Amino acid sequence: MTTNRRFLLVRRPNGPPVADDFALVEEALPVLAPSQFLIRNRYASLDPAIRGWMDDAPSYMPPIPLGTAVRASTVGEVVASEAEAFPVGTWVVGLNGIEEHSLGAAGGFTQAIDVSLVPSPTNFLSVLGAVGMTAYFGYLRACEPKPGDVVLVTGAAGAVGSLVGQIAKIHGAGKVIGIAGGPEKCRRLVERYGFDAAIDYRGKDVAALSAEIAAHAPDGVNVIFENVGGDILDAGLNNLAMGAHIGLCGLISEYNNAGEKTGARNVWQLIVKRATMRGLLVADYVPEFGTGIAAMAGWLREGRLHFDEHIDHGIDNALPAFLRLFSGTNDGKMILALD
Amino acid sequence: MTTNRRFLLVRRPNGPPVADDFALVEEALPVLAPSQFLIRNRYASLDPAIRGWMDDAPSYMPPIPLGTAVRASTVGEVVASEAEAFPVGTWVVGLNGIEEHSLGAAGGFTQAIDVSLVPSPTNFLSVLGAVGMTAYFGYLRACEPKPGDVVLVTGAAGAVGSLVGQIAKIHGAGKVIGIAGGPEKCRRLVERYGFDAAIDYRGKDVAALSAEIAAHAPDGVNVIFENVGGDILDAGLNNLAMGAHIGLCGLISEYNNAGEKTGARNVWQLIVKRATMRGLLVADYVPEFGTGIAAMAGWLREGRLHFDEHIDHGIDNALPAFLRLFSGTNDGKMILALD
Repeated sequence: MTTNRRFLLVRRPNGPPVADDFALVEEALPVLAPSQFLIRNRYASLDPAIRGWMDDAPSYMPPIPLGTAVRASTVGEVVASEAEAFPVGTWVVGLNGIEEHSLGAAGGFTQAIDVSLVPSPTNFLSVLGAVGMTAYFGYLRACEPKPGDVVLVTGAAGAVGSLVGQIAKIHGAGKVIGIAGGPEKCRRLVERYGFDAAIDYRGKDVAALSAEIAAHAPDGVNVIFENVGGDILDAGLNNLAMGAHIGLCGLISEYNNAGEKTGARNVWQLIVKRATMRGLLVADYVPEFGTGIAAMAGWLREGRLHFDEHIDHGIDNALPAFLRLFSGTNDGKMILALD
Repeated sequence: MTTNRRFLLVRRPNGPPVADDFALVEEALPVLAPSQFLIRNRYASLDPAIRGWMDDAPSYMPPIPLGTAVRASTVGEVVASEAEAFPVGTWVVGLNGIEEHSLGAAGGFTQAIDVSLVPSPTNFLSVLGAVGMTAYFGYLRACEPKPGDVVLVTGAAGAVGSLVGQIAKIHGAGKVIGIAGGPEKCRRLVERYGFDAAIDYRGKDVAALSAEIAAHAPDGVNVIFENVGGDILDAGLNNLAMGAHIGLCGLISEYNNAGEKTGARNVWQLIVKRATMRGLLVADYVPEFGTGIAAMAGWLREGRLHFDEHIDHGIDNALPAFLRLFSGTNDGKMILALD
């Protein structure tokens, strides 16, 4: 293989991304400088956060520059190297791009991984990757859970949400309620991930959602792990217990919304219930990833943690695979195999 | 005086309160049961929170029942008593109503006060009352301030806001910025209350307000003490420093809004800046009021704390006096003298 197919961002999406926002190009392989290495990306992680990086707006990370590969975490193998610490054959994970090959540099974000620890290298993009660490540190740190808490997880069938529900149960939550879209996902929450109750948000307004949460949590919820925003966050805010904690992980309902943001209309409830809403980002916990990976890997070995990966194939499927995240047609952590 | 004039809520306001929502009635004085006492209310505290109590919506306190006096803190004198602990002549403060006389009961919310401690009994409705305690505990506890912090206070010329700015300076804030309406209030923030900078919000949208905050706080604000909500909160959220704390004290911009609430549209910024937004209510700190009153009284004696009271007279002026809070035509803590 002497060329590199790359999925470039060429225009900033206005609302949902469309084909003309991207270009699939074929370029010559880059030449290595000293201490660089070439990664053959095998899998790319498709995450809602990528949509935010496409906008030219202040965020926790600079926008993806136009004309460069769409930023994504990838798992791959080193196929050429000028870096002693990354010999050819090393498996690595890092924040690279949706492209067949990426340049790595010693001292950069890319890290070597031991793929023999897990059934599939893709697991380093899901349960042991940023997704798993977001669930682990986001729940245990930003949400300040106490044993016996009633916990509400939104986007609960998603990659992060399904893990949060299971971590909450392992850590002694009294009741874990998940919100997801459609009966099939709701069934999966209870039967596969061990949630105590599931709520299908489809076709329900804030009042109906609020009433359904209240039916499952008559004394309110002590913790909300929020992935969605909009009506779903507003319904959760209507059901806070006194002193509740809300970990704000994502707002997927807003990412494709080009107009004014909805935000949190019921923020008044924070005063009524003296509640705390805290934004969380997995990057803050990188120095502690070792602890999180060890804990998650242990629960995996004990059979206490279930997760699913939805793998679509081919770089030419990058856009439809990415859009599954917003239509909810993926069944598990969305991964693109670059084969 | 053998009759009692009372300002009753007779209809729940839809948007801004209007005259037909209330009735001024004259009733016979109530007869005392054992352990009760009769208070001749001299002053009533008019606060934005009262507007929320007029709605029939779940809140931190039950709605004001229709047909009863509008709930308000009052300061007055005991003029008849069947309660040993509250002899005739005792000055008291308590959560009563806008009425010439209120029934007090031993063991209730009403407390005796020493009016010789302060220049005017009204001070127990402002700097040493719920307003002062809200500023003291709301800032020092809910906002977790650190020395050197850049602090943004909204509704800064209001009774709570003007005290928060001064407490922040006393406690070592690096810079205190206030937002208020109109050049006169902005001048007062700097010249009388010692704010480092003042921003006039009038005629400015979120973008313009955001830019003006950024000009005063190029590295962002570490603390926001929020009294207003809406565009002003959104502009603050656009200017958070990493790990900022937002104490949510009130949302006066929403209280007369009968339609959908604005809330916090830029709540996404909590994720970007890993910030914390916490609702606060002074009632949570009642057991510690002694500490707060001692500290505030000490600063008062040292001349380090300035405050203003705007006293309107007459129970028949209750509505126009209350509406000043929303038009911003009061100059200091709004108090109604029931003379």
